[in-house]
Amino acid sequence: MTTQLLGKSFIGLSRSEGTEVTGQGVQPSTGAKLEPAYCSATAAEVDKALALASAASPVYAAMSGARRGEFLRAIAAEIESVVEDIVARGLLETGLPEMRLRGETGRTTGQLRMFAALVEEGSWVDARIERAQPERQPVPKPDLRSMLRPLGPVAVFCASNFPLAFSVAGGDTASALAAGCPVVVIAHSSHPGVAEIVGGAVIRAAQSTGMPEGVFSLLYGGGRTVGQSVVKHPAIQAVGFTGSRSGGTALMATAASRHQPIPVYAEMSSINPVVILPGALARGEEALAEAFYGSLTLGVGQFCTNPGLVFLVEGTGDAFLAKLKSLVDAGAPGTMLNAGICKAYQEATQALSAVKGVEVLASSSAAAGIGQALPTVLLASAADFIREPRLQGEMFGPATLVVRGSLEEIQQALAGLEGQLTASLHGSIDELAASSAVVSILQSRAGRVIFNGFPTGVEVCSSMVHGGPYPATSDGRSTSVGTMAIFRFCRPLAWQNFPDSALPAELQDANPLGIRRHEA
Amino acid sequence: MTTQLLGKSFIGLSRSEGTEVTGQGVQPSTGAKLEPAYCSATAAEVDKALALASAASPVYAAMSGARRGEFLRAIAAEIESVVEDIVARGLLETGLPEMRLRGETGRTTGQLRMFAALVEEGSWVDARIERAQPERQPVPKPDLRSMLRPLGPVAVFCASNFPLAFSVAGGDTASALAAGCPVVVIAHSSHPGVAEIVGGAVIRAAQSTGMPEGVFSLLYGGGRTVGQSVVKHPAIQAVGFTGSRSGGTALMATAASRHQPIPVYAEMSSINPVVILPGALARGEEALAEAFYGSLTLGVGQFCTNPGLVFLVEGTGDAFLAKLKSLVDAGAPGTMLNAGICKAYQEATQALSAVKGVEVLASSSAAAGIGQALPTVLLASAADFIREPRLQGEMFGPATLVVRGSLEEIQQALAGLEGQLTASLHGSIDELAASSAVVSILQSRAGRVIFNGFPTGVEVCSSMVHGGPYPATSDGRSTSVGTMAIFRFCRPLAWQNFPDSALPAELQDANPLGIRRHEA
Repeated sequence: MTTQLLGKSFIGLSRSEGTEVTGQGVQPSTGAKLEPAYCSATAAEVDKALALASAASPVYAAMSGARRGEFLRAIAAEIESVVEDIVARGLLETGLPEMRLRGETGRTTGQLRMFAALVEEGSWVDARIERAQPERQPVPKPDLRSMLRPLGPVAVFCASNFPLAFSVAGGDTASALAAGCPVVVIAHSSHPGVAEIVGGAVIRAAQSTGMPEGVFSLLYGGGRTVGQSVVKHPAIQAVGFTGSRSGGTALMATAASRHQPIPVYAEMSSINPVVILPGALARGEEALAEAFYGSLTLGVGQFCTNPGLVFLVEGTGDAFLAKLKSLVDAGAPGTMLNAGICKAYQEATQALSAVKGVEVLASSSAAAGIGQALPTVLLASAADFIREPRLQGEMFGPATLVVRGSLEEIQQALAGLEGQLTASLHGSIDELAASSAVVSILQSRAGRVIFNGFPTGVEVCSSMVHGGPYPATSDGRSTSVGTMAIFRFCRPLAWQNFPDSALPAELQDANPLGIRRHEA
Repeated sequence: MTTQLLGKSFIGLSRSEGTEVTGQGVQPSTGAKLEPAYCSATAAEVDKALALASAASPVYAAMSGARRGEFLRAIAAEIESVVEDIVARGLLETGLPEMRLRGETGRTTGQLRMFAALVEEGSWVDARIERAQPERQPVPKPDLRSMLRPLGPVAVFCASNFPLAFSVAGGDTASALAAGCPVVVIAHSSHPGVAEIVGGAVIRAAQSTGMPEGVFSLLYGGGRTVGQSVVKHPAIQAVGFTGSRSGGTALMATAASRHQPIPVYAEMSSINPVVILPGALARGEEALAEAFYGSLTLGVGQFCTNPGLVFLVEGTGDAFLAKLKSLVDAGAPGTMLNAGICKAYQEATQALSAVKGVEVLASSSAAAGIGQALPTVLLASAADFIREPRLQGEMFGPATLVVRGSLEEIQQALAGLEGQLTASLHGSIDELAASSAVVSILQSRAGRVIFNGFPTGVEVCSSMVHGGPYPATSDGRSTSVGTMAIFRFCRPLAWQNFPDSALPAELQDANPLGIRRHEA
């Protein structure tokens, strides 16, 4: 490690002087504590970070897309310069394998550069120009131009399950910075060291590209104390969060009870239903089971898009289930991100197994070490699923519930589902065409519908929707992955009868940025 | 009147059988009650309207933009066929003059046709296409396409101050129907007859264009009973409201406390600051005063964009104020929309006048009849304004507060303002260029900034932003006027690896609708 870890928050360009220990990194596979201890930012330091963000906000908002892009690219480069430190520390404190850590770092820098390209190009602001018609009767038409502008400082909570791509410089931070909003990050206790390494990279990038102090701060102190105080602070104008339903709904309640309520973008929970029709089984039940098992156990099942619910038509899929059972029975244990997630996984699978009518179809007989999870498949009838809302409970980890019933029952079960990030349908093209009612329900319940594929592996691109109706997210009008994520941190602003020279470049007559505009 | 008023809700295609009287139209200028009495929809009928809306939702959402456009155009035509009834009843129950009622009917049908054109053209859905790259390393890229889809049934509350353009078939209803959402309207007690006439027009249009029953219902019963029960109902997915801050925040609280929280678009209150710099006065103080007086008293000051706050630099504007005083002193009384608004106006102007440091600069000496308001101008120092948050209170009607102070004080006062729908700056182009700090503050506080103009007269077009930070609206990311209003009732949905034939037309390879798309 070339980065020296101090265990202290970044308050703009300063480091915290707080001495109250809030936690320490823990190696999930041994339970061993990792140095250094992490200290909570003091209340005064939290206030200072927010005052700096407030002061930086108009300065940063006034910067061009080119300047913001420069900053985002510098963050990516600074992260790449410490990738070995990230991997070394990540191996210790996250339980994730090296390939995943390197891959996730690449996704993170890729996201930063994707947003850089978006704001450098500039058309994303949705510039709209309606020119004056002074002669119009009965009243003249004014010159009216609009575009998206940043909301102001954004609070971003790091996610336990993505120490890079949804943490300090992850998608929420990248999209908020791209939009022109300063960001105050609240670190996650599960990977404080990786957070500090990445936080230092962001600060160096801010300095080298001449950004205002306060464009970025990173706070340690736990979501329930420091995090809540940040969300309550009048400077904060929006919140990005990926985590549990209880954590997300607590932030929603705090945000709604502020003097000025603010938007919360919380990505919370999803069981990602997968409907398997006979035509898909006809293509090869065993291969389908293998593909499903791969999705189920990817990253020890710790993805928001993990397929936690499978529907099979009664009387079909015996070979699929037999193969799945054989894979799960022989499944290897996997180290989870932290002891809390591991415990919650055991409790959730046990709770669902204990529901009347549920049987354990398969469970690995391997010996699980400290912090490790084993894959599990539960089985229930569609009638029981329809009757029992607890069977919609999320088992965060490599477990799924297989539900069998008639097509009518499956349709009824799907109609009773809560909002989901994804919903998948496997079948033939003829079956898809004949399933318009089922597809319509899946579309109404999810942010992304998938045909003949599995939901894990979220593509970062302009058409991705990683969102979905509540409680998959707090706000189904948004996505936290892909370029559309920038829209979460903006609002439209209109200029009426402003002279050309006083308009933002995006709205000037000559279109000096050469962006795509809507001109009436 | 050719329309026979029954005083009953529209529950889809049926009429309510409720017999509990909830209110009656009242002629504001006499206090006389107008026939018929209006009966509240029963609880069972409210449930039925929402069940019909739920059932209609997927059917209506699946209809093409061309079909929705046909429906919207039919509503406009049906409204035009009863315009004489609207005017006759509106003259009785709204206190508005005939020209305004005809003009507002024209704005309403214009809005309906504007949204029809938007959805017929179709590009508004923001179609995004990223094609598969099966050979990509390390993992293949899936085919991923996204577009905006309707949220589901929307509750729309009629506004007292726009019996047509923000009521039964007003902007909220038009934009929600355009998006593909069924609408359940809650009538306003101030103009129940106009609501019934327009409601009948919408129902006839739905029938003649073959829309599913439940695409529209109109409920009588008062916001606090029927309205709250509608917003609490699980079928409702979003709320549109224009009215008071207390009414809007009550709906926000209800929506946030639902099992599934839903978005509320409430346009609530705004005092629309106007900053007048010396360069504007130099062009002619009296003419500016006349123009300001025209904006202040337009519609008896009952516009959300009424200029209720004016800043003048200390030592300037004496002739402006003298002329304004002479206009106001001689100002004619105007009949307000209803007795409640008239009483609230008197109370608000008296309350502000009673604040220490505030003096009454001008107040009409005319005799006000029943339900009439007189224009009023109050005066305060910037120091007092900065000190006293009560001076930001809205006086809904033809009253304004003039604040004088140094440029520094004015800047400080502006920085302390709550969110506004509009903010205006009058001055020379040189002054505008020299006022970047002030302009930056105005931009951060408002949804629309205006140079050398007044805020009333909200243009309905693609670049209008009639929104603004809280408490101007509940959600500053939105506008309730103009084509962008449609985005309030949508969410993005992504399709992954769907065969072309199973995709919506907007996303099919051949682009059969010929819309503008984002293709990567």
